[in-house]
Amino acid sequence: MNITNAKQALAFQEEGYNMFKDRNITIDATRGKPGPEQVALCKEMLAPLEAYNSENGVDVLNYGGNDGLPEMKRLFGEMLGVPSDNIIVGGNSSLNMMFDCIATLIQSGLWKSGQKFLCPSPGYDRHFAVCEYFGLKMIPVAMTSDGPDMDTVEALAKDPEVAGMWCVPVFSNPQGYIYCNNTIGRLAKMQVSHPAFKLLWDDAYTVHHFAGKRPKPTNILKECTKYGNEDRPILFTSFSKISIPGAAVVCMAAAGESLKLMKKRINVQTIGPDKINQLRHMRFFKDLPGVMAHMSKHAEILAPKFEDAYSLLRFELLSTEATFTTPKGGYFISIETAPGLAKRVWQLCKNAGLMLTEAGATYPYGNDPNDSNLRFAPTFLSFEEIEQAIEVLGASIRLAEAERRAANE
Amino acid sequence: MNITNAKQALAFQEEGYNMFKDRNITIDATRGKPGPEQVALCKEMLAPLEAYNSENGVDVLNYGGNDGLPEMKRLFGEMLGVPSDNIIVGGNSSLNMMFDCIATLIQSGLWKSGQKFLCPSPGYDRHFAVCEYFGLKMIPVAMTSDGPDMDTVEALAKDPEVAGMWCVPVFSNPQGYIYCNNTIGRLAKMQVSHPAFKLLWDDAYTVHHFAGKRPKPTNILKECTKYGNEDRPILFTSFSKISIPGAAVVCMAAAGESLKLMKKRINVQTIGPDKINQLRHMRFFKDLPGVMAHMSKHAEILAPKFEDAYSLLRFELLSTEATFTTPKGGYFISIETAPGLAKRVWQLCKNAGLMLTEAGATYPYGNDPNDSNLRFAPTFLSFEEIEQAIEVLGASIRLAEAERRAANE
Repeated sequence: MNITNAKQALAFQEEGYNMFKDRNITIDATRGKPGPEQVALCKEMLAPLEAYNSENGVDVLNYGGNDGLPEMKRLFGEMLGVPSDNIIVGGNSSLNMMFDCIATLIQSGLWKSGQKFLCPSPGYDRHFAVCEYFGLKMIPVAMTSDGPDMDTVEALAKDPEVAGMWCVPVFSNPQGYIYCNNTIGRLAKMQVSHPAFKLLWDDAYTVHHFAGKRPKPTNILKECTKYGNEDRPILFTSFSKISIPGAAVVCMAAAGESLKLMKKRINVQTIGPDKINQLRHMRFFKDLPGVMAHMSKHAEILAPKFEDAYSLLRFELLSTEATFTTPKGGYFISIETAPGLAKRVWQLCKNAGLMLTEAGATYPYGNDPNDSNLRFAPTFLSFEEIEQAIEVLGASIRLAEAERRAANE
Repeated sequence: MNITNAKQALAFQEEGYNMFKDRNITIDATRGKPGPEQVALCKEMLAPLEAYNSENGVDVLNYGGNDGLPEMKRLFGEMLGVPSDNIIVGGNSSLNMMFDCIATLIQSGLWKSGQKFLCPSPGYDRHFAVCEYFGLKMIPVAMTSDGPDMDTVEALAKDPEVAGMWCVPVFSNPQGYIYCNNTIGRLAKMQVSHPAFKLLWDDAYTVHHFAGKRPKPTNILKECTKYGNEDRPILFTSFSKISIPGAAVVCMAAAGESLKLMKKRINVQTIGPDKINQLRHMRFFKDLPGVMAHMSKHAEILAPKFEDAYSLLRFELLSTEATFTTPKGGYFISIETAPGLAKRVWQLCKNAGLMLTEAGATYPYGNDPNDSNLRFAPTFLSFEEIEQAIEVLGASIRLAEAERRAANE
């Protein structure tokens, strides 16, 4: 076939796409799930422990201890770079802690439903769902490779209705960007008008680099404290993508009034998180170097998957208008199609058996104003699946572009 | 010493009390904690499992499944006598589920802070703390051996400001009373004025009888449904006092709009509870007969402790105005001193090294209007400790009575 016009090009791309569609694949690349080979690395954690006492003698086989074992608080403190007194250990879901954190701020009257919330976008769909549940009005803020667009953030933070902001400072979901120190400094010292403005600092990927060194941006709590804003940040992190997804241990960290407020709730809310699981984690990981050594094994598994995905994307998207990010850590690759094509690409992928996170999901209210962002999660897939998935994705993007050119002709 | 007046009697009781005080015991009988020998019965649960898949093939070593494994829902359904579709499995704390339940009702606008809540009293201090946290105005309702005084409940429920009621239907905390079927029927069908009136039905001790047969009062959900009130009850139960306290699995059960409301929250709030721990429980207990067989081993441990406590109390309180309950299950013994003496007795016990739940704690806002209720938790104590504790308690009650008589003389 000699391609001389957009209609012919469309026919050509349709043919290519149909070829992949006819393979009848079923691949789910929607969520950032560790692969089974990663999880297998800590199966030893499921063995019985030699003794069921924490380092301060607490029997973990009975009630008590509602903010965590001292050793677990110490390890989380090391991971987040904060004193262990600032740590509250949670259950198995950091999302749950974030949800409860917002619930507490609203319950206390410090925040009000209907107030505004800054959402660097694209971002994490579950963060946005929590805001929506509580009736916080989400204001998208553009992301750059240095973090959220700080001129916009600083301007918006002057609004007394702006109660807080989501931040995924390291390997942001989905682009894999890392906040630079200048961004963090500006977040720490910026003027805010809301009396209880908080940075919800989801440090989910703090040890999740698979290439190069661990990114160590300025510590947000130290930086905020420097400017008299110790109440501002509430930090979260999790072992979900370190040990066993859905059966790990998570924490939050805060200082000053924020810490008091959260402790007050937790003292009434629960008898405390599962201490056996904390002890399992401590006996297995021991300390931060233990965590880092374990994560280097994750890196050995993940780096080739991501490198493979990057090579394939480079090839598949060569002649297209689409771009993609190539982070050195985290769980996602973010793809920008030409404006107006993401929903169509998502549908074409779905029709050919590839499930991506729904187009729009990376924006507040599912509303991607450019309809251009797609999120691809390679970690749970085999190499063969990554290859098949990206072939489908490439063919879908090329077809969507050809459709538009043909329609505009 | 020849006792001819109240002053001499006081001196005599002081001497007796001081003898026990001089023993320098330290006994903590404040909380309903299973003893280590009970917990040891399920140590096998901590062994690795042969396979980590639920009966419907879900890999419990990865994300997913936010209302529980099907087998776990089935077992909870059997325990509570409801279809498994009505069950939402939680984490390790039923208190946490109750707290979140109230948070959801307030967040949704169905309940409002400042509205009223019926609290059969004496009752469970942590229930009351949750109401207080959310600003629900607690109205104490007298408990009888058949459950709450239903004439009062029915009258109060006509107030449109009365949003709900706490119920511990089996082996109530602290008296160990069991709601009779007439009480349950009246709760199910009574007229309420609040549009979202709920019974928070904490069935914490549903299989926790240590003598006789399992009490099986009328099923509250069935009974409410019969009268068109399926939205009314929200049930809770827990393995905390069946398997490992603080590291068990819990659930709630609801129907109709109540179930929808709770599921809506949970879908946003969490990635779901720890599935490994659910599977550990299922592999160990298997089904309701498995749970019952296990609980009969608990009963073998607990029955002698309670029987011992009852005999000692009978002896120690013989010549006093105090009375006590003798339940056949649950975790507590409730003691009624003469009016106005509970705080003094609590202080005397404390001074002699015996910690009881703080006097007043079994009433809303810590305010026991008669200052007469004390709670004794024998389960965690050894026989020797139970004996020492009750000797101190008896001496303290006798001394407090003697002090009053001397003061009134």
